[in-house]
Amino acid sequence: MADVFGFDNPVKRRHHNWAKWDVADDELPMTIADMDLPTSPQIVQALHDKVASATYGYEDIPQEYYEAVQGWLTRHHRFTPPLEWMSFATGVIPALSSLIRTLTTVGDNVLMLTPVYNIFFNSAANNGRHPLASPLDYENASHTYSINWADVEKKMALARTTMMVVCNPHNPSGLVPEPEDLAHIVRLARQYGVIVVSDEVHGDMLWDDTLDYTPILSLPEPLRGNVIELISPSKTFNCAATHACMVLIADPNLRAHAVRGFNNDEIAEPNLTAVPASIAAYRDSDEWYAAMLSYVRANIELVNDTLAREMPLITPVKMAATYLPWLDCTDLFAAHPSSPVSSVSPDYQSTEVEALDRPHTVSDEFTAFIRQTSGLLVNPGGEYFGNGATFIRMAVACPRHQVEDALARLKRSYDLWCEQH
Amino acid sequence: MADVFGFDNPVKRRHHNWAKWDVADDELPMTIADMDLPTSPQIVQALHDKVASATYGYEDIPQEYYEAVQGWLTRHHRFTPPLEWMSFATGVIPALSSLIRTLTTVGDNVLMLTPVYNIFFNSAANNGRHPLASPLDYENASHTYSINWADVEKKMALARTTMMVVCNPHNPSGLVPEPEDLAHIVRLARQYGVIVVSDEVHGDMLWDDTLDYTPILSLPEPLRGNVIELISPSKTFNCAATHACMVLIADPNLRAHAVRGFNNDEIAEPNLTAVPASIAAYRDSDEWYAAMLSYVRANIELVNDTLAREMPLITPVKMAATYLPWLDCTDLFAAHPSSPVSSVSPDYQSTEVEALDRPHTVSDEFTAFIRQTSGLLVNPGGEYFGNGATFIRMAVACPRHQVEDALARLKRSYDLWCEQH
Repeated sequence: MADVFGFDNPVKRRHHNWAKWDVADDELPMTIADMDLPTSPQIVQALHDKVASATYGYEDIPQEYYEAVQGWLTRHHRFTPPLEWMSFATGVIPALSSLIRTLTTVGDNVLMLTPVYNIFFNSAANNGRHPLASPLDYENASHTYSINWADVEKKMALARTTMMVVCNPHNPSGLVPEPEDLAHIVRLARQYGVIVVSDEVHGDMLWDDTLDYTPILSLPEPLRGNVIELISPSKTFNCAATHACMVLIADPNLRAHAVRGFNNDEIAEPNLTAVPASIAAYRDSDEWYAAMLSYVRANIELVNDTLAREMPLITPVKMAATYLPWLDCTDLFAAHPSSPVSSVSPDYQSTEVEALDRPHTVSDEFTAFIRQTSGLLVNPGGEYFGNGATFIRMAVACPRHQVEDALARLKRSYDLWCEQH
Repeated sequence: MADVFGFDNPVKRRHHNWAKWDVADDELPMTIADMDLPTSPQIVQALHDKVASATYGYEDIPQEYYEAVQGWLTRHHRFTPPLEWMSFATGVIPALSSLIRTLTTVGDNVLMLTPVYNIFFNSAANNGRHPLASPLDYENASHTYSINWADVEKKMALARTTMMVVCNPHNPSGLVPEPEDLAHIVRLARQYGVIVVSDEVHGDMLWDDTLDYTPILSLPEPLRGNVIELISPSKTFNCAATHACMVLIADPNLRAHAVRGFNNDEIAEPNLTAVPASIAAYRDSDEWYAAMLSYVRANIELVNDTLAREMPLITPVKMAATYLPWLDCTDLFAAHPSSPVSSVSPDYQSTEVEALDRPHTVSDEFTAFIRQTSGLLVNPGGEYFGNGATFIRMAVACPRHQVEDALARLKRSYDLWCEQH
């Protein structure tokens, strides 16, 4: 397929204040979940048009924004939410943090399935709530995760558990909850008086054709009253800095309460890029989206093939979703243990931890070793709690040659680690 | 002077989701404080360049942003704050709301001088704090405001008063506090354990050559420890939707506390326009700035001259700052009273009020009458509490012909009001 969107060409991000690229000149960052690919030409054009207006005053949110979101969900996810379910917020994490403040009380438990995107922990802990982990079960033989229902129910039933944050599909495990999984979560939540907030920013990127992402509000009544769905073009269209999130809430009372919180927290007003970028993404960028999916899927296959061939002691978890391969290094650390001084044992599994006070794990030691020996930056799995201590995470939505470079660097570090441990 | 920046040409804002222009086709909005003038070409170019990067991921805040702010304050306000005093927030009101949450306690009084920008009241009330007004003194003969120091001290001394929000220069009164005024406020605040937050977004627009705006942190030690200064290019450069505010705090402990709050409240990360627009504004746009000042000054003079000639019962307060003429209609309402049914008496002066629960005033009746009879929208002074009940406010940073249109509409409504009342 011709590279009509320029995915093979590197986007200049070094020395341009991108957080991901704040690294030394010879280092290669594969960490933060944004793309090193150009976004859709329609988004770029929409922002050029907006900038050309030369006047950047206070904005309204037009009806066509809500319609664009509705159209996207209808075309790609067979889900047509009423427009009145939607409210704007300046981002998924600002919305989540505000919802935690508005809908729970200081000291409450906020339940989440680990390993999970670590900022969920911060949102809870920063606001004086207790991030409560329900670790996913992990089958070592098949390298697959599943929900531990007994543990979820036990923790949902705690009096202080008032919110559960779901990551659907799940980052970093790549788990795609089935509709029945989501329904079971919502039923338990109803039973125990828990509000479910579902972060669905990875819902547009699935790699297993036998699986569908299920928008949580597409569940039938009565499974909607205690549910909040967060979507954003940020991951799919590489536009996190447009600061746009759509919050979908079916229940009018819950919605009014949540939106009041967004207003008080001053996260309800769009900057000048949020509206045009979101409309161009959701309404006009299907062609770019299809090409991006195909391109990133090939990157993930390249990672899988290269690891199997050259680094057999690192096994990618079966990636059903996200562009963030989650790499199981348990066999590597078993065959080549880290130094005993600076790491915890590979069978360490965190269950209830503070966001910013996690133990140093072998994954931290390994990623530091990789950076030191090859200049490659990947995320230590310990960041994500659960059984992450023996995993690493690598973002691969980037030009193919960058993935090849990253894999070559990883191979160099892998060989050195095996030699030295 | 040649119109090199196109100020005479209307910027197309009707039907483009600008909040100010969400009006009927035959209506003319002169309300919200954003400009209908094109912003500086350097800002437009900087945003075009940023948009052209086609990748909109997570950003860092570069050193050159802080240096641009420092350079602006040095060149235009003889004040060179250390870079380490500065922190980024997504806007002045998000920062103010966060500071109120972080640095005061539910039930505390937040003191402010009225009439004042009404959103200050919302920031306090939305967060369970009590907006406490100290009305400015007003001399009817000279149409000038001054601070009632006895009242300020009485209210500062209340045990529950823990923050004072200053508007420097003052919106809507146009009052420019002298350095000694600011010093006196800060001394009283130190004496009574009050934190002073100064919103200085109007500091770049002064019309009285005998007066200077004083950045509050340019006061000498020991008048800095309990002070927070908020600046933004939003008003000066017509870029409110770039969502950028610089928070200056000299005291390191206070700064650490405040910044922790910005992080918890998720207002510490820049969208993709905040950094390039702010740098281009503060570093590269002095020529545009000088031309804009000259243009808007002429608009204000046109308002003053036209009122004196054609509408003698409306008297503009001497506008030392802001592009928001504050028009005293006391004589008009004395000569032509409103209907007694729907208004309060012209000598109504609010002192302690809830943000969203203010009485209907004659200014509301008059502005509704203006809208109905000529399609002109201006703000009723009652919105701003204090003695605003007999005032109206009109934003005039727009093409000259738009000011002329607005004045012609106002004249039509004025004549009709005089006929019918």
